[in-house]
Amino acid sequence: MCGVFGIHHHDEAANIAYLGLHALQHRGQESAGLVAFADGKLRQEVAMSLVADAFNRDRLAHLPGQTAIGHVRYSTAGTSELRNAQPFVFEYAGGKISIAHNGNLVNADELRAELEAQGSIFQTSSDTEVIIHLMAKARDADVVGRLRTALSRVRGAYSLVLLTSDERMIGARDPNGFRPLVIGRLKDAWVLSSETCAFDLVEAEYIRDVEPGEIVVIERGGMTSSRVDLSVPAVPVAPTFCVFEHVYFARPDSLVNGRSAYRAREKMGRALAQESQIEADVVVPVPDSGVPAAIGYSKESGIPFEMGLIRSHYVGRTFIEPQDSIRHFGVRLKLSPVRAVVDGKKVVVVDDSLVRGTTSRKIVKMLRNAGAREIHLRISAPPTTHPCYYGINTPNRSELVASSHTLDEIAKYVTCDSIAYLSHAGMMKAVGADSEAGAGYCSACFTGNYPVPLGTAALVQLRRARI
Amino acid sequence: MCGVFGIHHHDEAANIAYLGLHALQHRGQESAGLVAFADGKLRQEVAMSLVADAFNRDRLAHLPGQTAIGHVRYSTAGTSELRNAQPFVFEYAGGKISIAHNGNLVNADELRAELEAQGSIFQTSSDTEVIIHLMAKARDADVVGRLRTALSRVRGAYSLVLLTSDERMIGARDPNGFRPLVIGRLKDAWVLSSETCAFDLVEAEYIRDVEPGEIVVIERGGMTSSRVDLSVPAVPVAPTFCVFEHVYFARPDSLVNGRSAYRAREKMGRALAQESQIEADVVVPVPDSGVPAAIGYSKESGIPFEMGLIRSHYVGRTFIEPQDSIRHFGVRLKLSPVRAVVDGKKVVVVDDSLVRGTTSRKIVKMLRNAGAREIHLRISAPPTTHPCYYGINTPNRSELVASSHTLDEIAKYVTCDSIAYLSHAGMMKAVGADSEAGAGYCSACFTGNYPVPLGTAALVQLRRARI
Amino acid sequence: MCGVFGIHHHDEAANIAYLGLHALQHRGQESAGLVAFADGKLRQEVAMSLVADAFNRDRLAHLPGQTAIGHVRYSTAGTSELRNAQPFVFEYAGGKISIAHNGNLVNADELRAELEAQGSIFQTSSDTEVIIHLMAKARDADVVGRLRTALSRVRGAYSLVLLTSDERMIGARDPNGFRPLVIGRLKDAWVLSSETCAFDLVEAEYIRDVEPGEIVVIERGGMTSSRVDLSVPAVPVAPTFCVFEHVYFARPDSLVNGRSAYRAREKMGRALAQESQIEADVVVPVPDSGVPAAIGYSKESGIPFEMGLIRSHYVGRTFIEPQDSIRHFGVRLKLSPVRAVVDGKKVVVVDDSLVRGTTSRKIVKMLRNAGAREIHLRISAPPTTHPCYYGINTPNRSELVASSHTLDEIAKYVTCDSIAYLSHAGMMKAVGADSEAGAGYCSACFTGNYPVPLGTAALVQLRRARI
Amino acid sequence: MCGVFGIHHHDEAANIAYLGLHALQHRGQESAGLVAFADGKLRQEVAMSLVADAFNRDRLAHLPGQTAIGHVRYSTAGTSELRNAQPFVFEYAGGKISIAHNGNLVNADELRAELEAQGSIFQTSSDTEVIIHLMAKARDADVVGRLRTALSRVRGAYSLVLLTSDERMIGARDPNGFRPLVIGRLKDAWVLSSETCAFDLVEAEYIRDVEPGEIVVIERGGMTSSRVDLSVPAVPVAPTFCVFEHVYFARPDSLVNGRSAYRAREKMGRALAQESQIEADVVVPVPDSGVPAAIGYSKESGIPFEMGLIRSHYVGRTFIEPQDSIRHFGVRLKLSPVRAVVDGKKVVVVDDSLVRGTTSRKIVKMLRNAGAREIHLRISAPPTTHPCYYGINTPNRSELVASSHTLDEIAKYVTCDSIAYLSHAGMMKAVGADSEAGAGYCSACFTGNYPVPLGTAALVQLRRARI
Repeated sequence: MCGVFGIHHHDEAANIAYLGLHALQHRGQESAGLVAFADGKLRQEVAMSLVADAFNRDRLAHLPGQTAIGHVRYSTAGTSELRNAQPFVFEYAGGKISIAHNGNLVNADELRAELEAQGSIFQTSSDTEVIIHLMAKARDADVVGRLRTALSRVRGAYSLVLLTSDERMIGARDPNGFRPLVIGRLKDAWVLSSETCAFDLVEAEYIRDVEPGEIVVIERGGMTSSRVDLSVPAVPVAPTFCVFEHVYFARPDSLVNGRSAYRAREKMGRALAQESQIEADVVVPVPDSGVPAAIGYSKESGIPFEMGLIRSHYVGRTFIEPQDSIRHFGVRLKLSPVRAVVDGKKVVVVDDSLVRGTTSRKIVKMLRNAGAREIHLRISAPPTTHPCYYGINTPNRSELVASSHTLDEIAKYVTCDSIAYLSHAGMMKAVGADSEAGAGYCSACFTGNYPVPLGTAALVQLRRARI
Repeated sequence: MCGVFGIHHHDEAANIAYLGLHALQHRGQESAGLVAFADGKLRQEVAMSLVADAFNRDRLAHLPGQTAIGHVRYSTAGTSELRNAQPFVFEYAGGKISIAHNGNLVNADELRAELEAQGSIFQTSSDTEVIIHLMAKARDADVVGRLRTALSRVRGAYSLVLLTSDERMIGARDPNGFRPLVIGRLKDAWVLSSETCAFDLVEAEYIRDVEPGEIVVIERGGMTSSRVDLSVPAVPVAPTFCVFEHVYFARPDSLVNGRSAYRAREKMGRALAQESQIEADVVVPVPDSGVPAAIGYSKESGIPFEMGLIRSHYVGRTFIEPQDSIRHFGVRLKLSPVRAVVDGKKVVVVDDSLVRGTTSRKIVKMLRNAGAREIHLRISAPPTTHPCYYGINTPNRSELVASSHTLDEIAKYVTCDSIAYLSHAGMMKAVGADSEAGAGYCSACFTGNYPVPLGTAALVQLRRARI
Repeated sequence: MCGVFGIHHHDEAANIAYLGLHALQHRGQESAGLVAFADGKLRQEVAMSLVADAFNRDRLAHLPGQTAIGHVRYSTAGTSELRNAQPFVFEYAGGKISIAHNGNLVNADELRAELEAQGSIFQTSSDTEVIIHLMAKARDADVVGRLRTALSRVRGAYSLVLLTSDERMIGARDPNGFRPLVIGRLKDAWVLSSETCAFDLVEAEYIRDVEPGEIVVIERGGMTSSRVDLSVPAVPVAPTFCVFEHVYFARPDSLVNGRSAYRAREKMGRALAQESQIEADVVVPVPDSGVPAAIGYSKESGIPFEMGLIRSHYVGRTFIEPQDSIRHFGVRLKLSPVRAVVDGKKVVVVDDSLVRGTTSRKIVKMLRNAGAREIHLRISAPPTTHPCYYGINTPNRSELVASSHTLDEIAKYVTCDSIAYLSHAGMMKAVGADSEAGAGYCSACFTGNYPVPLGTAALVQLRRARI
Repeated sequence: MCGVFGIHHHDEAANIAYLGLHALQHRGQESAGLVAFADGKLRQEVAMSLVADAFNRDRLAHLPGQTAIGHVRYSTAGTSELRNAQPFVFEYAGGKISIAHNGNLVNADELRAELEAQGSIFQTSSDTEVIIHLMAKARDADVVGRLRTALSRVRGAYSLVLLTSDERMIGARDPNGFRPLVIGRLKDAWVLSSETCAFDLVEAEYIRDVEPGEIVVIERGGMTSSRVDLSVPAVPVAPTFCVFEHVYFARPDSLVNGRSAYRAREKMGRALAQESQIEADVVVPVPDSGVPAAIGYSKESGIPFEMGLIRSHYVGRTFIEPQDSIRHFGVRLKLSPVRAVVDGKKVVVVDDSLVRGTTSRKIVKMLRNAGAREIHLRISAPPTTHPCYYGINTPNRSELVASSHTLDEIAKYVTCDSIAYLSHAGMMKAVGADSEAGAGYCSACFTGNYPVPLGTAALVQLRRARI
């Protein structure tokens, strides 16, 4: 779970990239970083914090130049993990280069073992470092050739933005196109971003998506395009865009895979209402991500939409949990029920996913305490039964409640009166898939059909969870 | 614009008070403070920051004891202003006492001049210090008597929570009852709070409001009630609760003046739809505060409700504004339009207030850029024409666009296709006023009818603005 | 233990005052503060930290104007103690005023009780606030008159620098002149400081001391002088400058009471050598304060001087003490013995004071571990037997090892082979006292002869310690 | 300029290593880092700050285990430079390993180019990363074999402490033994350190130096020793310990190359007095490093020693320099003259080195302003004419004033009345060299005789400076 951004040939490159990261903040809250090019140098500023806290006027002033790339990364833990913060900068025979990566490689462990056997050293725990090593070992004359050689070896998900020491900005996307990457223009400058919402913020114009398997190279003369070398896998690769970007991950105001995430979610809500009708007094979303689907559900069902749960704007990063006096504390700090909306009512609660079930359980109890007579949970996606190995941070299979429990069991655990999920076909129709089966999309987290073969470690982990 | 909280006789007093401040964070983001009683001492921790940043495990550990009060305050500026952060602690002939104040006194300047003439010194710019001085100079034997004497001198708005060095917690509210103050119980403990939403967070039970002009004293034996001495003003004082708490300020999940803020806002939206009908494709709220009114508007008008503006969760406190490249930057960082919702549409935008008009103007332009065909602005309150002198931080009259411009002029400035406000009577009906004229409520910011005579400084300021 | 500084009519007033505080840092490390005058306003910046950490370019930029005063204060504890950080700013009938105070009033408790009985409130635990209240209650027309009236009531030690809202800078010193206060010029500007070392840093010229009982008022027209009103005490007051400033507190490069602190300490060392001769191999100072006396001892005795103890420059403010493995840890981090100097030697260790004896005991053990054959402790002052009530932060009498133990007992506790102190007469000769008995100096900490009668609390505390 | 420390098999390993870094703080103030081994993992905590600020209880608690190594590094600049902070942790085919390095490799650029040509990538600008790569590429079965292979390729100065993922601690020193590395015991634990002063602080016992060209491996069974492979250079390598460690760099309480740094400096002062006699009133050291030599000079010459310059303990990391009013400001904040000592006197100022001459010039002017009649500068080392390429951070040759100016020219620039340096033979005698020519020591910074051939970049730089 990461976001990438880049801008080439703009007088306020670092400032614009900083704002781009602001717009992509939802894709990663652990670390934020920028690298800018000026006078033949790549300057880097990274921090373990939100974008707004990571940079100030002084730090941005350390990043002169007309080209800059940036990265936001999801939270893991540990102050020394700053070494894992991207964009990385490294030096190799081809000069200096910086790289920002969204996605997850499935054969990183195998490649890492192979590289170490050849004498490579690793300083981070990131699979991105594998790409760097492969580039460094490539025999190609040019950095683009090196990148193409490196990418012919890796499997899995990557949307990359690179910055070279001769001020070229490169964007690349894996042949499956799991993660988004879009191209825009801001006056004369070229812009790359994980999502179009960053273009809206900086007033750039959306041009098109980087295509699955495409490498775009941006330099002063303009943009040129080439393809990731697919000769080695031999088998043709069909695009499989991550459906979960539509379901939850992308911002609703972004165009995702060329379609409005907001509208897709609204359609999921409508389909959900068609599939699992129920008489109720009010439709309440779990804010903010459940709002568009709840609006769709309300429209389709005719049941009034109300903001029966309020989301706090001020959830602190650190807080003190009382020893025993307050139940469901974490959720309470973030969400609070509006008694006037739910008291005495039959409530349909619309959420976009249910992973472990613990949060839903707390929400149900909160609403029950606030007087809700009946609570019917509606999830605007199918049951999450399998972990993602292509870049979404889902828990192990054993923690996914839907992987081992029936609907009734889940409803009982969550203590709701009924539960229903959207069907796979319903979801695929909402996101405009080419077929009801979901052609063009990866929905492995809902089906277990992984479009790119997994590495050994992932397979072992999956097998264990099944036992 | 402040929030106050107190808890008496609970084993985790400081922790609970800290959580209470979390729930009241929307009432003030400049400073946060706690004072706790233990071993005959009042210990204080204050900081110029959000509640989550102000306190950590260590700082809360410095606040032992079973009784604690807290305060959040709205942002002004300046690091040295920590001296203005409440709760204040001071020492006088009656011992030590701590005080937290929400509201604004209208005769503070006059009293301050009088007190200084008698040799008093002032260390803060807060009108709360006046109350302290009056208590110190009172001849009463007991702290409650001193407080009653002090309050008989002050005019204006106050909801107070005090903590004495014999571990009594006192709540007091001005005879008009401008600002809210509610009483709750958490098991055996008594709790005071500006809003009921803090009770919900800490799982306290709402008992009742502190009444206008009431002083409640909480000690081990229980709670006793008395009245603020009204003999000096002679004229009877009718309660005039601030209607703006309903319109905007209170959290929607709070009970305000005994009524749901959410429902009041929804009713305002309904009334607004009745009063100013228009044909349109979509109703879009300015999130988050405009949401309940927009839902009401949608229900009444039958025009579909959509979240056509997205609010960012990650707005930083400091950011770098590009020199010239991005227009309407501040609003853009906070709000972004959903093109899929507004493109080619006639859009009704519902907001709860329009003060200077600059933000509305930026929102209208953003929506227009996102393709909106027509934009009709609907404000779920009457035009704001007068400043508040009772504790809401409104600008001077000259900056209130509605105080000197017609609707047409405002619409032209904001660049919307039409604008309409809710009528005063419509608003009063929505908040359940005793009469259409608004009996029981202060609506001076909409009418200029100030229920408590203003001090000289305020009158001069008002007169100047009129010229 | 504090330092004060002020500069009047200089284009870089805040910068110069900041540097002055740097030079006075040894007089107080808890808090640092500056107040500057510009445009009729007094702006304040204070922090609980060293001067270098308290201010940066931004904070100094908040302090425009040509006149500024500053203060450093000794460490107590607690973040909320920022309220005690000086210079104070307060408002009273005479306008705004700022005050910085070095010293300690002996009748503060009595005056505080009297003021509280009259309705005054206190917001700090500082005795300085008493002076402010007395000024506020004075009936004089002018601030200088008010100050004179206030000072006629207080007893004890004060060296004050004040800044008024009409840009006058005032210096005042108690009739005994316990604490230093010196006047200098920096081109056209007037400067006040606790010590001359601050003049040297900012390249100001030392003019003279503020005399005991003198009030100097500096305004654009120049400096005028008047006297603290002595009519009320009736009895004539003789100057009694604190001898401990010479012994330990002032910086060695300062002129103290018109004399070089370095030379006074060297003379104390010479006198000590005369009084308590011993055969030894090497004279080792406890750095840095013991160095001048050790040099004097070496010169007089002919025993070679060596830096047998090294002082670390990098002692951290916080560190982790191992659980049980390292003895005498705190002293070890700060001081370390040079084995090459002391191994197998008879060592004379010269220190300037011995308060509790715990540090000396650790030093002796460290030197013994480093091979010293004999250790003879020589203190370049008489035994400290009484606490100071005039502004030096000494412990209670019961903790002063010399107040209740013989030389032999102390030597046994410290585990040195012999111990000797300088005689009272020897010390007084070294500081150039007008008589062998010490006319012109306060040496109460060595004799118990308190030149200004103590308040009740102090007397009770003293009496208890005697039991 | 760095310091290294390690402790093996102690229950408080991280705490002890933290203290060891405290004692080595003078060897590097930019960054501080610790790596500890527990449960098969290497945990790292590094920060760009002084040791005392880099670690607190929480951060040390993140470093469990019985073995830990640490590193302090000299200040360069830039927050992103955290990547250069040691100890490094990396992963390679042999597992995980951590390394801390003091010294400088002269063939790092050549090796780096060679490694990059083979496909290696570099993430830091540190030459230490070269050693890591060579280890990773080595074909040896064991980490010690890999280290020996790597070290057979590198030339220059290194004192290394490594920690392996099977909890072995390794110390290694280059065949010339440029930088110190000593072995100690703390009860059952083994300790490695750059200097013995760290042993004194943690109460470890000094056992012996790691010999030039020795590799020591410490595991549970004890310590084993082997030699760096010298077969490749073929020519025999004689030890050449850095004489500058004696002159200035090491702490005076450390044993350096088996000898007391304090005593060596005192002898240099004595020799200086013999070589360049002058009639004077007082000998004044530039504190703190010049003190032992000044004591020696005083003893030999009979001229009295005085602390005529005071060093401030509180020099801040950041300060505001006034625009034009204060000359020689940086030195003034750190040093101040004692007028009582130097006024009207002929002063001999003893310093340990004169690099650019700018600081000496400021000191001379300060002393002249304080009244010194004559100032005779005596440097307790020969003229610094050549840069160091073995780990001391000296400026380029063109900035070394002695490389291109005569004594008279230097005296004129510094504005002193006379200047004299210690002879090379005098210095070598003071440090106990095996011959007057300095056998056993590297004195390249004084002679240009570099005992290990320099790399191309250094040679180019040297040649340029000569033109």
